[in-house]
Amino acid sequence: MIEINLTTKNREEFIDITEKLINVINQEIEKENIKDGIVVIYVPHTTAGCVINENADPSVKKDILEFLNTHIPRDKKYHHTEGNADAHIKASIIGNSLNLIISGGKVILGSWQGIFFCEFDGPRTRKIFVQVIKK
Amino acid sequence: MIEINLTTKNREEFIDITEKLINVINQEIEKENIKDGIVVIYVPHTTAGCVINENADPSVKKDILEFLNTHIPRDKKYHHTEGNADAHIKASIIGNSLNLIISGGKVILGSWQGIFFCEFDGPRTRKIFVQVIKK
Amino acid sequence: MIEINLTTKNREEFIDITEKLINVINQEIEKENIKDGIVVIYVPHTTAGCVINENADPSVKKDILEFLNTHIPRDKKYHHTEGNADAHIKASIIGNSLNLIISGGKVILGSWQGIFFCEFDGPRTRKIFVQVIKK
Repeated sequence: MIEINLTTKNREEFIDITEKLINVINQEIEKENIKDGIVVIYVPHTTAGCVINENADPSVKKDILEFLNTHIPRDKKYHHTEGNADAHIKASIIGNSLNLIISGGKVILGSWQGIFFCEFDGPRTRKIFVQVIKK
Repeated sequence: MIEINLTTKNREEFIDITEKLINVINQEIEKENIKDGIVVIYVPHTTAGCVINENADPSVKKDILEFLNTHIPRDKKYHHTEGNADAHIKASIIGNSLNLIISGGKVILGSWQGIFFCEFDGPRTRKIFVQVIKK
Repeated sequence: MIEINLTTKNREEFIDITEKLINVINQEIEKENIKDGIVVIYVPHTTAGCVINENADPSVKKDILEFLNTHIPRDKKYHHTEGNADAHIKASIIGNSLNLIISGGKVILGSWQGIFFCEFDGPRTRKIFVQVIKK
């Protein structure tokens, strides 16, 4: 398992981790001589998640975050009283793991796809775990 | 990796791809003599996704789509100005990959489960990638 | 494939299945002598799902469920007329499968992470399927 460390800077932000992930996966592909396989990306937190969407226009991630903030506001009255109940709900909706496919010795991403780490209760030091499985 | 091509006909629609997927997975199961394993279904787009839910009554997919359209309307003011910001948000919420389990040489689906390709910005030509991993 | 049976007691509830899952996965890890791998958790239903989030404070799951009930009420007018259209929508948003990573012969969960079975149309007898894949 590969472990990636990340420092987030805002309470809520989508951080493009595409390049970072592709680099560590490519090292694994080379080391284990993988032609075909899958990758599991796993966020071990409960107030953060991960999602794949467009990273060419940064306004896309802004729209996704605004949608979440509109429907899951921070300052509503919640049962969980640590001030981050909204972050737990957002993380549950977005999800905490992703799948990628390796084919022809390469990670397959669509032309417009980027991989985002979704911080909902930062700034914090965060981890991402990556497991590569050979076919 | 198996590649499936799909032509969508409407801006928004849920297309039942269960049979198409089961067929290509079964070919792989036979070819590689798989008894147990998993399958990753991957949509390489940022305005489309995939989901597993009931396909017996077609009104279920209608309700899911109406829920998304009510909360993520197309004609709101968004930062992304290409007219499909809603489609990016919908895709982020629904997700772009699925897992299936193979057991006893067969793909395991619940009695009411079907697999849907979710178009949010069609009509378009779309792709679905499938990777089968032997246990 | 491992099959877990579960009896839910309420129409809607999040049931902590962390211990139950870890136990059956650990048996598989020992039996197959797995050091590294992944796990797919699969819910074969269309009105139930699964999610990973905080299980230390039970009010977190209460907040997630309340958010879903507020935005996807049971008593709205839906096309699907079996009285559980809301449950199908909730299941589509939460998702019906999860990924875990095995590293160093152990399932890796974050300090605050627990695994929940999400019942949206109970009480019912439910199943959870688990497939462990060795790296």
